[in-house]
Amino acid sequence: MSEEPLTISQTYAKGKEKRAEIGYTRVFPPDSATNTSVLANRTLLDSIFFRTKFFNPVEVNTDITLLGVKLRTPIFCSPMSGFNRLSSTTLADIADGLKRAGSLLMLGIGGSDELQCAIDSGVPVAKIIKPYRQTELIYQKLRDAEERGCVAVGMDIDHFYGALRDDRAAMTDLFGPQRSELLQQLIASTKLPFVIKGVLSVQDAREAVRLKASAIIVSSHGSSAVDFAVPPMAALADIIKAVGNEVTVLIDTGFKTGNDVLKALAMGAQAVGFAGSMLLAWGAGESAGVENLVNQMTAELSRTMAATGCPNLKAIDNTIIV
Amino acid sequence: MSEEPLTISQTYAKGKEKRAEIGYTRVFPPDSATNTSVLANRTLLDSIFFRTKFFNPVEVNTDITLLGVKLRTPIFCSPMSGFNRLSSTTLADIADGLKRAGSLLMLGIGGSDELQCAIDSGVPVAKIIKPYRQTELIYQKLRDAEERGCVAVGMDIDHFYGALRDDRAAMTDLFGPQRSELLQQLIASTKLPFVIKGVLSVQDAREAVRLKASAIIVSSHGSSAVDFAVPPMAALADIIKAVGNEVTVLIDTGFKTGNDVLKALAMGAQAVGFAGSMLLAWGAGESAGVENLVNQMTAELSRTMAATGCPNLKAIDNTIIV
Amino acid sequence: MSEEPLTISQTYAKGKEKRAEIGYTRVFPPDSATNTSVLANRTLLDSIFFRTKFFNPVEVNTDITLLGVKLRTPIFCSPMSGFNRLSSTTLADIADGLKRAGSLLMLGIGGSDELQCAIDSGVPVAKIIKPYRQTELIYQKLRDAEERGCVAVGMDIDHFYGALRDDRAAMTDLFGPQRSELLQQLIASTKLPFVIKGVLSVQDAREAVRLKASAIIVSSHGSSAVDFAVPPMAALADIIKAVGNEVTVLIDTGFKTGNDVLKALAMGAQAVGFAGSMLLAWGAGESAGVENLVNQMTAELSRTMAATGCPNLKAIDNTIIV
Amino acid sequence: MSEEPLTISQTYAKGKEKRAEIGYTRVFPPDSATNTSVLANRTLLDSIFFRTKFFNPVEVNTDITLLGVKLRTPIFCSPMSGFNRLSSTTLADIADGLKRAGSLLMLGIGGSDELQCAIDSGVPVAKIIKPYRQTELIYQKLRDAEERGCVAVGMDIDHFYGALRDDRAAMTDLFGPQRSELLQQLIASTKLPFVIKGVLSVQDAREAVRLKASAIIVSSHGSSAVDFAVPPMAALADIIKAVGNEVTVLIDTGFKTGNDVLKALAMGAQAVGFAGSMLLAWGAGESAGVENLVNQMTAELSRTMAATGCPNLKAIDNTIIV
Repeated sequence: MSEEPLTISQTYAKGKEKRAEIGYTRVFPPDSATNTSVLANRTLLDSIFFRTKFFNPVEVNTDITLLGVKLRTPIFCSPMSGFNRLSSTTLADIADGLKRAGSLLMLGIGGSDELQCAIDSGVPVAKIIKPYRQTELIYQKLRDAEERGCVAVGMDIDHFYGALRDDRAAMTDLFGPQRSELLQQLIASTKLPFVIKGVLSVQDAREAVRLKASAIIVSSHGSSAVDFAVPPMAALADIIKAVGNEVTVLIDTGFKTGNDVLKALAMGAQAVGFAGSMLLAWGAGESAGVENLVNQMTAELSRTMAATGCPNLKAIDNTIIV
Repeated sequence: MSEEPLTISQTYAKGKEKRAEIGYTRVFPPDSATNTSVLANRTLLDSIFFRTKFFNPVEVNTDITLLGVKLRTPIFCSPMSGFNRLSSTTLADIADGLKRAGSLLMLGIGGSDELQCAIDSGVPVAKIIKPYRQTELIYQKLRDAEERGCVAVGMDIDHFYGALRDDRAAMTDLFGPQRSELLQQLIASTKLPFVIKGVLSVQDAREAVRLKASAIIVSSHGSSAVDFAVPPMAALADIIKAVGNEVTVLIDTGFKTGNDVLKALAMGAQAVGFAGSMLLAWGAGESAGVENLVNQMTAELSRTMAATGCPNLKAIDNTIIV
Repeated sequence: MSEEPLTISQTYAKGKEKRAEIGYTRVFPPDSATNTSVLANRTLLDSIFFRTKFFNPVEVNTDITLLGVKLRTPIFCSPMSGFNRLSSTTLADIADGLKRAGSLLMLGIGGSDELQCAIDSGVPVAKIIKPYRQTELIYQKLRDAEERGCVAVGMDIDHFYGALRDDRAAMTDLFGPQRSELLQQLIASTKLPFVIKGVLSVQDAREAVRLKASAIIVSSHGSSAVDFAVPPMAALADIIKAVGNEVTVLIDTGFKTGNDVLKALAMGAQAVGFAGSMLLAWGAGESAGVENLVNQMTAELSRTMAATGCPNLKAIDNTIIV
Repeated sequence: MSEEPLTISQTYAKGKEKRAEIGYTRVFPPDSATNTSVLANRTLLDSIFFRTKFFNPVEVNTDITLLGVKLRTPIFCSPMSGFNRLSSTTLADIADGLKRAGSLLMLGIGGSDELQCAIDSGVPVAKIIKPYRQTELIYQKLRDAEERGCVAVGMDIDHFYGALRDDRAAMTDLFGPQRSELLQQLIASTKLPFVIKGVLSVQDAREAVRLKASAIIVSSHGSSAVDFAVPPMAALADIIKAVGNEVTVLIDTGFKTGNDVLKALAMGAQAVGFAGSMLLAWGAGESAGVENLVNQMTAELSRTMAATGCPNLKAIDNTIIV
């Protein structure tokens, strides 16, 4: 039926066609084959299976309060930038689609214009600030995010030596190491929840808690941080055990489907980020494409939650996976 | 020699040619590559080897009483439907071939006409009813099955949220969750053996026993239920341990050969279902093709039973595999 | 240099060219991809590495007394038949090449003419008799082998239900099960060493010892016995442990190189058989090709024995492998 | 940007183009697919991931004193020879590039001219002498190396039965076994640090210590020693445990990147050798290409050291890897 919404895999296929049509050549996870951490993360995800429970099926609800915001799904958009390389409306379309799907948008590098554009859509926005060498620039970005109405702010600390483009480090002059004291002052300076992105060790997770972060994102930053960083799904269990009760633990890197989301949730994460997938969804249908992808993934998540006896996100635990 | 019967692999090859000729595009296991549970099940099957015993070979008998019916082989036809998409005589041919091979036919969705057509062939028929949202429809199908002479009835409980077509859920309005009380009443309402299909956890296996099911089928429903459901061969051992003495345990999903059957039997299953293979066998030789495939698989099963020192199905246990 | 002898891999490459040229289509291990046991055996072989010892290198000697015959190498030719499908001189060439390399030839099915042809070359010949349904035929073959001067006789008990050709059982009328008492009488009736081929379990190994066999061959018969039979290298260790002190333990199935031989010897086997490799060597250079292949493999074996500190075959044990 | 230096992978790609252009067909690791030990070593390297630490990043220094020489990187050039098969200036270019990168050059077989050419560049040179059958030739090479100003000498003991070219042993008349007493006298006869190359077992490592070697190289000699020799990364841990405090432990065989170097350092090695990579780097940019490759790999090493909290080489241990 041509009227049926695209499925997840149809969305990705159509998005790739669009990407080729535009001539947009930068490939992100889940399709990137250049970063070993992403590939290893996929291998781990694909090795997890669900222990089904088909008797007495439950009614499923995927509502969640994340960073103080009520959402209809534990699927959010991980920080991205450079949207206008695709089209001048890409960011607005994605923001709008996410809003209609009851999701949340994280933004990466990019100016006040981009931020305002996202805010204007009405979607909850978290601004993830880069680890700039210039501390004043960080504070300026933070204040700007507060003023424009972001629901949260944060920093991707794994870019402190620049962003990896294949095996070249880019923007190494712009980004730099951040001392803990500086981060502690930064976090203390805002009333917004603060997100630390790029946590892959218990040590860093504990430090994030000590610095009063509200949330951490277990992430190897797609294909643009340390190659051979431990895959997020391999790092997750220990991090949950160490700080799961003290901080909100999110995850991203190479996730593709609603079942992938359930696997991370079963391992203890509270929500899962998608970036490249959102670009593909935009390619497949602009704003409606993004809304549909989040809905399709949430529907798959709900179906498998029902098939494993989980009425809501809190009911999910590792007994449902093998 | 052109007069020799087709082997198992020749049957599959010829069946695929026929399928292409007809333009029948829906591919089931064992060829489907879209469902991870099926693929993982194949990997498990292919990792099992036989501990041979060549001295003092035994005479082999593969007779079995299944669902109260005497059969000549532990190979049966798993529930299918939509036969007339291939040809108007496909169902009748398959039923006839199975009858001549001493096997049993399970039927899936489909009307009374199809059911009667199968019954008319003389093959023992088990009607596996879908989990309809309308309870009265379930009872109606059950009564119809009883009246037309089915040897057993059952339900595939894993379709309660619809049938998966790649990553799209289909028929979600038609099918729905079934409460245990309803199933208990349904099972109590018939004198026929009742089969619960789609059991993949000890919990569900125990519930099936509690509800007085006569048999369960450990199955991930080919490629049409939960993606990443635990592979049946991974679930089997625990289920056998938990309920093997209380209920007949069958299995299906991606089986291809007589040796595959022996592997499942060695793990504790009592019989093994094939669906897509039967369609291919029909394509390879209509009724005679189906009869021949069952015979060829049973012959391979017998050969390897002899080579592992098992004179009959009850003598098979997990000491013959490594 | 065109005067240098072909290496092992060059021999196989040239042999395959010749095979294609002749139009000989039956492919044996090590190239067959149709038998899982052969493939699994290769995977096991390829997972074994050598712990090298380069200080104080030893002088290496590969002499061995096998079935009462002094040989210069633990590499022998496993039973084959149908040589004249390649050429009328293939058997004589192979026998001659083996003789010049100080090896031993086992013969499979085939008449007195073939046997006499092999004997005439002067190579030590062991006649491996098929498990014929007609017992008198077995005795007739045994007496013929004794009279013509074989150094040993034996039987491949794994063909008792016929020979597998892909997934078809062939010659099932000709071959049949052999009771232990019959084998015991047969073995007792000859003064020649008796070889039982096709042993893959401790149980069968113990029975062979009880029946007074002189040697067993741990073998899954290339691609022509039970598919998914346990790979010989997986079965070897337990068999050595159980009967290694009571019977000569040989092995074959998918071996390719001198390093493969050393791996089996390190696991406890006393010699290793090659069949398809000998046909390829014949294709690569007729009699001289066979002699050269055995020499090249023995040279590689010697090199790695030296590199692992083993002066002779008795010095080899499992401390040299990881 | 065309002015940016080539990355590691760009260097390899361009180097391969150049190699094809020249018609140079001998392929070394990391591209060789003919030696199982090299492939297995890559598999081991690629299975190691880094436990990142992004808070409080450290300033990184990769200085090291190796064989008595201060270097700026733990990356050195493993022994090679036959440079003039590429061009008459290849050796001089590589030596010059290494010097400018603060690295060290090991030389293999080759005459005094080659040695002098390398020395003239100013790079520290270690002469690794072949295990010649003629002892006087070894001493002659050693004296020549001393006189021309090498910083170290050594021997690759794994070539005692010749060099493997695919599966052919070459130069078996030239090279031969070396008794320990001879090596002990040889080592005692020089004041230069002595390097034993080709150690893959604890036993050989201990013997090297007993003979007063200053350093050992854990190496399976690319694709030219024993096929199926234990992969260096598999042998490293036990060797470090046994002799890590008594001798400098180096490693090579199939390494490609700065991250590979860090993995070996985390396992206990003190420096890592590259050979084929240097030829590719030369192809990509002659002297500047070699300098750039070492710099790029050292930069990647530094980045990941920073990302794992290691300020210098001594701070690296196995807690940074999983």
